Amino acid sequence: MELTSVRIEIPEGANAILGQAHFIKTAEDVFEAIVNTVPGAKFAIAFNEASGPCLVRVEANDDELRAAAIANAQAVGAGHLFVVLVRDAYPVNLLGRIKDCYEVCSIFCATANPVEVIVAETKQGRGVMGVVDGTSPKGVEDPAEAQARHDFVRKIGYKR
Amino acid sequence: MELTSVRIEIPEGANAILGQAHFIKTAEDVFEAIVNTVPGAKFAIAFNEASGPCLVRVEANDDELRAAAIANAQAVGAGHLFVVLVRDAYPVNLLGRIKDCYEVCSIFCATANPVEVIVAETKQGRGVMGVVDGTSPKGVEDPAEAQARHDFVRKIGYKR
Amino acid sequence: MELTSVRIEIPEGANAILGQAHFIKTAEDVFEAIVNTVPGAKFAIAFNEASGPCLVRVEANDDELRAAAIANAQAVGAGHLFVVLVRDAYPVNLLGRIKDCYEVCSIFCATANPVEVIVAETKQGRGVMGVVDGTSPKGVEDPAEAQARHDFVRKIGYKR
Amino acid sequence: MELTSVRIEIPEGANAILGQAHFIKTAEDVFEAIVNTVPGAKFAIAFNEASGPCLVRVEANDDELRAAAIANAQAVGAGHLFVVLVRDAYPVNLLGRIKDCYEVCSIFCATANPVEVIVAETKQGRGVMGVVDGTSPKGVEDPAEAQARHDFVRKIGYKR
Amino acid sequence: MELTSVRIEIPEGANAILGQAHFIKTAEDVFEAIVNTVPGAKFAIAFNEASGPCLVRVEANDDELRAAAIANAQAVGAGHLFVVLVRDAYPVNLLGRIKDCYEVCSIFCATANPVEVIVAETKQGRGVMGVVDGTSPKGVEDPAEAQARHDFVRKIGYKR
Amino acid sequence: MELTSVRIEIPEGANAILGQAHFIKTAEDVFEAIVNTVPGAKFAIAFNEASGPCLVRVEANDDELRAAAIANAQAVGAGHLFVVLVRDAYPVNLLGRIKDCYEVCSIFCATANPVEVIVAETKQGRGVMGVVDGTSPKGVEDPAEAQARHDFVRKIGYKR
Repeated sequence: MELTSVRIEIPEGANAILGQAHFIKTAEDVFEAIVNTVPGAKFAIAFNEASGPCLVRVEANDDELRAAAIANAQAVGAGHLFVVLVRDAYPVNLLGRIKDCYEVCSIFCATANPVEVIVAETKQGRGVMGVVDGTSPKGVEDPAEAQARHDFVRKIGYKR
Repeated sequence: MELTSVRIEIPEGANAILGQAHFIKTAEDVFEAIVNTVPGAKFAIAFNEASGPCLVRVEANDDELRAAAIANAQAVGAGHLFVVLVRDAYPVNLLGRIKDCYEVCSIFCATANPVEVIVAETKQGRGVMGVVDGTSPKGVEDPAEAQARHDFVRKIGYKR
Repeated sequence: MELTSVRIEIPEGANAILGQAHFIKTAEDVFEAIVNTVPGAKFAIAFNEASGPCLVRVEANDDELRAAAIANAQAVGAGHLFVVLVRDAYPVNLLGRIKDCYEVCSIFCATANPVEVIVAETKQGRGVMGVVDGTSPKGVEDPAEAQARHDFVRKIGYKR
Repeated sequence: MELTSVRIEIPEGANAILGQAHFIKTAEDVFEAIVNTVPGAKFAIAFNEASGPCLVRVEANDDELRAAAIANAQAVGAGHLFVVLVRDAYPVNLLGRIKDCYEVCSIFCATANPVEVIVAETKQGRGVMGVVDGTSPKGVEDPAEAQARHDFVRKIGYKR
Repeated sequence: MELTSVRIEIPEGANAILGQAHFIKTAEDVFEAIVNTVPGAKFAIAFNEASGPCLVRVEANDDELRAAAIANAQAVGAGHLFVVLVRDAYPVNLLGRIKDCYEVCSIFCATANPVEVIVAETKQGRGVMGVVDGTSPKGVEDPAEAQARHDFVRKIGYKR
Repeated sequence: MELTSVRIEIPEGANAILGQAHFIKTAEDVFEAIVNTVPGAKFAIAFNEASGPCLVRVEANDDELRAAAIANAQAVGAGHLFVVLVRDAYPVNLLGRIKDCYEVCSIFCATANPVEVIVAETKQGRGVMGVVDGTSPKGVEDPAEAQARHDFVRKIGYKR
């Protein structure tokens, strides 16, 4: 078994959501979950079929994101992985619905940060062990920084 | 710490669902989640109690699947892991309800494919790092293959 | 890439819930999820912001748990990790609501057992690969032990 | 305004689920919710479109249930009402997923009992006020009857 | 058909939750939903079986609330109605889990206010049309009252 | 007891969602549910407090919708009713999250159609019995109309 690190390429201004699912219908169901929640979102989902023809299955309404989602799904190469790339919507808007999709097992990360996926490779194939999502913490917020955080989520309207 | 790969033995015609939970009640609650959703399903759940007597806790309505679920839970040997093996129902039917069980943390995979679980072993015990679920992708679907996928999920009645 | 094991320090009588999320609002939303479910719970949540100032973001109603949650989040050091420590409530009471929080990706474990987090470190940062939650199973329950388990969850009132 | 009572005609061996929704997509989404949960179910859903052409919108995999669902939806005549009739599955199997459909507002009843829908009619149209679902209670269970209830749900396998 | 108003008798310090469900298992499942969420709650649930023996089905951990829940369920007399009375927990803590119970159709109200249930009676039986929950509004909050509301939910710790 | 019909005034281009809830925190929680799902939505929520000062509690990010939501909540006058008016988002986008709010009991309707609320008035106060949502059905879709419906939800991108 070998462990390697695969960098996810996130196009400018996009967010990535990576998860594990289990059926080719994932592509359509995650597509519908997103468009029914934020109709104006531009996005793509690529899902790695893991038996039979073993094709990357894709639904998208944006060509650049489509190509990038496919490239990331292939680079990781893990069976039943899905990669969502989305612009004009944020993971916080979409995650609840994606988690509720019938085929979705779990979400590895949701982020606009640089992401490295740690992959185990065996004779059989590849699997996601975990992700390095952005940068490690450099300190703890002090009271003024906590207040600024509190104010920020209210300034953008997400909390009252 | 040592990393090893453990193969999950999935009986002919069955699907496996592996996840992390946190209380011996998991066995009963996942059992009820499945039977309340697809009453005709044949299945077993084995859960690794991780403190006190540290017993594999089991609920099942099928003896072959019961034995296989126990064997897999022991082979992985990770604390608070659960293994579901099911016939006459598919993960897509069951996963929503299992994810909603009060004790369930997350689902590692749901699949009928060959599965290898990557396990870390420390002095304290064992933990699941990830899974190799089936085979890595061999290509990207072309428009005809996308259409065939689209047609297939409608032919089986899962989409309109 | 280097793999290391980080021990989570769980204060006496507390439970720990570790998960992956994706926005500084996680701290407030997980706080509200807990207090709206079990108002009497004493708890803290620490979330590792993974971009910009990269601060540990914290909400708590108990000083000891606050300090311990921060220390654990820093010790793991993975971007977008959150650590909940809670007394006077159990994960089974809270997990459903925490899983439903808009920002939560997945839960690594929920436990009062000793926990080791297996961390991958790259040049970029750190990520959680998995957890060793308690001890590996030592055997399989026999019918009397299964009955005792069944009786116990009824004695504490959690099942009828 | 006039109040009338409309009897729902439930075919032999079927269960009825009545609810309020809000978009013609309801027909397809409730169809998919059912078939993804209990693939072998025979069922129909009729939804009263309440603007524009104001047609009863229908999805079904059984002709008798299709005709009966349409007849019931028309007999009640309330805008945005939906009527599900199902065989080979029970409401307890399906209700969670139907409640979660994006368009579903609420469920009036789920039952194999005789049902009367109380309808208010105004100049504008008709609306459901409530339902008479089966028969009023005739007494309170005594300890032996409570035990028999407890035993029954375990005998059918729905509780452990 | 006759419309009457039935007053729900809520014991001092308790809250009432009224809803529609559809199977005798409701009594056990709602019981478990509550005790798994707020283990210290004192409560009772009475459910009106609407076919066969037509008994009020009851689960409770408090005798006074048990008697009161039965009396209210009988007074309303609607088939498949359930009445929860609870102390030492609030509806906001419990409602999510009760709504998610497999058998629950909908919730008519959740309140500590005086409640009148409007009941339609036909030859067949009785059904809930709606509820009068507390008192009608007397005015609109001004900015100071809105601020006081905002402050209050934070003072009790339910919002940050 | 008197039954009356109250017309909901829905501003041009808006949708209305009416429901029953149970705590003044409803106003903030429904606000957050909407803005976290479709950040660009313009909307207002008015909630009828039903005890103590009995004020209409309001959160909004649009003045016209704020005034209209208050007017509708007062016109209905039922305790614990809430009225959402929203532009630049549709109920199908929002309903899942609103149903999941901790305080929400049920949703009476979600619609852009003319709506009449049937209200029962007693000495104590007022309650919603049901709604007349749009127009009664005028016929049943034929195969061509079913195909047009099927095509329409795909043309707007909501189904694949």
